[in-house]
Amino acid sequence: MDAETRNAFYRVLHARRDMRHFAGGKVAPEVLQRILEAGHAAPSVGFMQPWRFIRISDRKLREELAELVEKERQYTAERMGERSADFLRLKVEGILECAELIAVVMAPDDGTIFGRRTMPEEMTLASCACAIENMWLAARAENLGMGWVSFFDPQQMAALLCCPPGAKPLALLCLGPVSDFYKAPMLELSGWRKRRPLSFVLGENRYPDGNKQ
Amino acid sequence: MDAETRNAFYRVLHARRDMRHFAGGKVAPEVLQRILEAGHAAPSVGFMQPWRFIRISDRKLREELAELVEKERQYTAERMGERSADFLRLKVEGILECAELIAVVMAPDDGTIFGRRTMPEEMTLASCACAIENMWLAARAENLGMGWVSFFDPQQMAALLCCPPGAKPLALLCLGPVSDFYKAPMLELSGWRKRRPLSFVLGENRYPDGNKQ
Repeated sequence: MDAETRNAFYRVLHARRDMRHFAGGKVAPEVLQRILEAGHAAPSVGFMQPWRFIRISDRKLREELAELVEKERQYTAERMGERSADFLRLKVEGILECAELIAVVMAPDDGTIFGRRTMPEEMTLASCACAIENMWLAARAENLGMGWVSFFDPQQMAALLCCPPGAKPLALLCLGPVSDFYKAPMLELSGWRKRRPLSFVLGENRYPDGNKQ
Repeated sequence: MDAETRNAFYRVLHARRDMRHFAGGKVAPEVLQRILEAGHAAPSVGFMQPWRFIRISDRKLREELAELVEKERQYTAERMGERSADFLRLKVEGILECAELIAVVMAPDDGTIFGRRTMPEEMTLASCACAIENMWLAARAENLGMGWVSFFDPQQMAALLCCPPGAKPLALLCLGPVSDFYKAPMLELSGWRKRRPLSFVLGENRYPDGNKQ
């Protein structure tokens, strides 16, 4: 890779945002295909390829998923205590407005031992998360926004998506055109939480002590 | 992003490999910094930033980690049954040969409810995996190989890295110059397992039936 390719890559990476505001519109089939292929090109432990992508094209199903998420948003607010009102003012998803909605589900355990004897479910999940990050970055390279919605009861979502026993929904991905990308993570811009300096998360030969802020 | 940037991004993405063969050498400090910053620019649920990166600069510690991994490789082989001999012939890590070794650890639960009421540990782990995928792609853009080693007992690794209670090691990342990048995933090239077609992992409005191979 030459310096230009490297710089282009970093431009995409640092401009990726978790988007909740969408501008409607459509995603061209060849663009959606490239994004799905980016997900499918992710690494997986023991080459399991445990990700399953479900495109939601049925409006009624989309609305049922939106209801499931709204219910979970209310449960979350109830647990938030004094931050509950602030939380409810934040926009946390764009399920009904985004051009495409894609559920990502972990396939049932296929018995792979390679690289996951000690951490079986963790490694399946990690592979699926890598696939999602690939899709997220690909979406940004395509000038599309993506948001990962994790506000849902996984069992209820599994039922809505006719998942087999052992399959586990991990994400609802909102994807589509946006008016603008946030300049920084929305939770940082809204003052919900601060960014840590890199030094805080970095240790040498031992867990970082967290005093280096 | 223009078409050139997009194409550059996809070149990096599709050329990324899980590397186990390294050519020694060094990683320049500014390159390592860019890769770590790529990890730290990952998305995280509730903006938790739960990843901790530990650079292993101590040779003795590196050797202890290599021993831990070798022990787990033997345990894995014992579980492999008839594929045990084939498995033992595969190179699964380059811990002692790679230029840089970085452990990634999940921070102890900080009590975040935002986006993780129903799947707390899963969402922490997913955020850390996204950070690792970012570093993996960044390494490829820098013409460096990276390999994610998951052959270890997480509790024993936590002890070696002086992790606080509740912190959980997720990966040992081997990073550094390589002679060549594999043309396809090593487990595909070696005939260990086949790549699924995208159609196999893709469903519409319901979990894919797996009959579309």
